[in-house]
Amino acid sequence: MKGERTKQSILHRAVDLASLEGLEGVTIGRLAEDLGMSKSGLFAHFGSKEELQLATISAARDRFIDNVLRPAFEEAPGYPRLHAICRGWIDYVERKVFPGGCFFAAASFEFDGRPGPIRDAIQKIMDGWVESLEKSIIMARDEGHIRSDVDVKQLAFELNSLFFGANFAYELRTDRGALARAMRAIEDRLEAVRSSRTSPVAPRKTQIQRRRA
Amino acid sequence: MKGERTKQSILHRAVDLASLEGLEGVTIGRLAEDLGMSKSGLFAHFGSKEELQLATISAARDRFIDNVLRPAFEEAPGYPRLHAICRGWIDYVERKVFPGGCFFAAASFEFDGRPGPIRDAIQKIMDGWVESLEKSIIMARDEGHIRSDVDVKQLAFELNSLFFGANFAYELRTDRGALARAMRAIEDRLEAVRSSRTSPVAPRKTQIQRRRA
Repeated sequence: MKGERTKQSILHRAVDLASLEGLEGVTIGRLAEDLGMSKSGLFAHFGSKEELQLATISAARDRFIDNVLRPAFEEAPGYPRLHAICRGWIDYVERKVFPGGCFFAAASFEFDGRPGPIRDAIQKIMDGWVESLEKSIIMARDEGHIRSDVDVKQLAFELNSLFFGANFAYELRTDRGALARAMRAIEDRLEAVRSSRTSPVAPRKTQIQRRRA
Repeated sequence: MKGERTKQSILHRAVDLASLEGLEGVTIGRLAEDLGMSKSGLFAHFGSKEELQLATISAARDRFIDNVLRPAFEEAPGYPRLHAICRGWIDYVERKVFPGGCFFAAASFEFDGRPGPIRDAIQKIMDGWVESLEKSIIMARDEGHIRSDVDVKQLAFELNSLFFGANFAYELRTDRGALARAMRAIEDRLEAVRSSRTSPVAPRKTQIQRRRA
């Protein structure tokens, strides 16, 4: 138990470090120096640099799920949940869940040109992330909350682009207006596909009302 | 002259390497190994790792300008030029102008959390890039090609987000549909602010015609 707690706190620091300085910089030596631990102590937890980096990616994934997806899944399926994922993503940049900005946006750009197990792990997570976004759009469509002819992949692509664009402008350009701009664009995109102008939590009722009218 | 040519060809390789493996990996030692040159030979051109990285950023900037901005500036000012910048950005990803995808998107995410001269140089270029995009929108507005009430910063933010999102999906996810999706979203954004539904190359005439109608 104590070993597992130690490992988790090492990984917490590894994730923070990666978000600030890049995942490639997360090595046994760099992390030992940063934590004031011996390299052999770290080797007891992670047998190699690659194992350490894969464990770091996995810990970052858990942190993202806890901060963005899990809270959104407390919302009703459909439009409320889709909206909560978008709102949650922008909040997560503002709250500095990763001190150097989104771990996964950074790791995606860092490793896209470097074939190997690290790139594969990042791609798998990012494919899964975009699929989650697409599924939340499909669910909103199937609930009747958004238009049945919505282009699911197109909308997911545009939303994700806005998330990454917000992270870029906020982190590199320190543009404090970027998150509001991203949220405005997100609202525009979602509003354009909404089935009804009335409350998005009861669109089925609204559709019936429209048919009666 | 020969020295300058050698320096340019070293920097060409340094830019390619940075786009594939990250700018942090571009060191005198790594580059000497890659080019089969001596480290002292490289030190004659670049006195330090930092000097090498700053020269690499500057060479990447020249390549971006030659491939995206210069061709767009051959188009008429206003909507045609704004559209050409957008189209040029997407083409530049497809043509693999940088073999590992956009140098600047990658460098932005790599260095946003690392204060110092490298981060400063990247931020200055990216601030300049977004300002160029904003200026091209302002010019299109002043030419009467797009609506006078266009939110310049909002549109530039959304376009740049789509560029980065396209690069991400194309490079990491190897999503071959990403560039068409980005272009469709860009056309939607531009079409939404167009002053006229008729030919965008002669909007002044169209405005006069509208006034006469």
